[in-house]
Amino acid sequence: MGRWEPDARGRLERSALELYAERGFDQTTVAEIARRAGLTERTFFRHFADKREVLFHGSHALEELLVDAVAGAPDTAAPMDAIATALDVAGGMFEERREFARRRNAVVAAHAELRERELIKLASLAASLAGALRGRGVAEPAASLAAEAGIAVFKIAFERWAGDADGPDLPRLMRESLDELRAVTAGA
Amino acid sequence: MGRWEPDARGRLERSALELYAERGFDQTTVAEIARRAGLTERTFFRHFADKREVLFHGSHALEELLVDAVAGAPDTAAPMDAIATALDVAGGMFEERREFARRRNAVVAAHAELRERELIKLASLAASLAGALRGRGVAEPAASLAAEAGIAVFKIAFERWAGDADGPDLPRLMRESLDELRAVTAGA
Repeated sequence: MGRWEPDARGRLERSALELYAERGFDQTTVAEIARRAGLTERTFFRHFADKREVLFHGSHALEELLVDAVAGAPDTAAPMDAIATALDVAGGMFEERREFARRRNAVVAAHAELRERELIKLASLAASLAGALRGRGVAEPAASLAAEAGIAVFKIAFERWAGDADGPDLPRLMRESLDELRAVTAGA
Repeated sequence: MGRWEPDARGRLERSALELYAERGFDQTTVAEIARRAGLTERTFFRHFADKREVLFHGSHALEELLVDAVAGAPDTAAPMDAIATALDVAGGMFEERREFARRRNAVVAAHAELRERELIKLASLAASLAGALRGRGVAEPAASLAAEAGIAVFKIAFERWAGDADGPDLPRLMRESLDELRAVTAGA
């Protein structure tokens, strides 16, 4: 292991996002990210497998957060209420990393392959949420439908939030979108 | 153009699916597909850009079918009812190609990259459906939420249908899944 660098990971993350935004993801090298962060490539690779991982390393933590929230919802909570609890927790997490999340989203939105990776991440989150609901005794296909509906709400609320810096906070947008989904599926 | 081959496209499609199922998608070459169909590679490439297109060329027709059905739903139809009409039409189309659709699904399910391509196709269908709803005057985010909910129903009903050869037909599974989604989002 090399010497300890204060907040090396955070510095690398910020430098990478700046460069992806300035030059584009494809045009940025790991060497440039490390240089801007005042660190070495070797240090970069101690923290991230490659330059895409800077954008996607949070997926695992997000999945855990969502699954734990569904699993921890009160026993009496209906499937969609357990999902709503999870969306609320996730929304709060993104609010804490507001600036990072918005910049990351702009980089992903500008790049076809990264947008595809994001879709795959969302599908994987939906599968994990469905598993968490089955763990609460929810039968199929209700578990998968509730999970997919939850991810649809997440996706659409997130897009609105990322696109409007002065708008409502993410947990509120999640709740509004879920209400809207309830209304639209009810046939209103 | 070469000489006319009776049902060359259908023969290539069937040969490709047989080979993908027998050997795996990666292990199959275009030369082998053409040979099994009793045709030349040249003929294959008159019909398909590559061996993946045999599996995905139907996406465009499906998109048109769904979008036309949403656009053509009665003016008085609520957004989710317009989506339900589209799912019904799509279900009928797949029933007519039942054997092909099920075999295709098994090939796609067995291959990570093809599964990813399928997710991207579904996301693109959701975007087109949302556009068709906006064309009917449905505001955002209701249009996108109804479209995403419709694609969730499509995905889950399709999986059930593909996995159970003796089960209900696809239009019926689509209706059941939509009813289930309505129930689960209503909090039942």
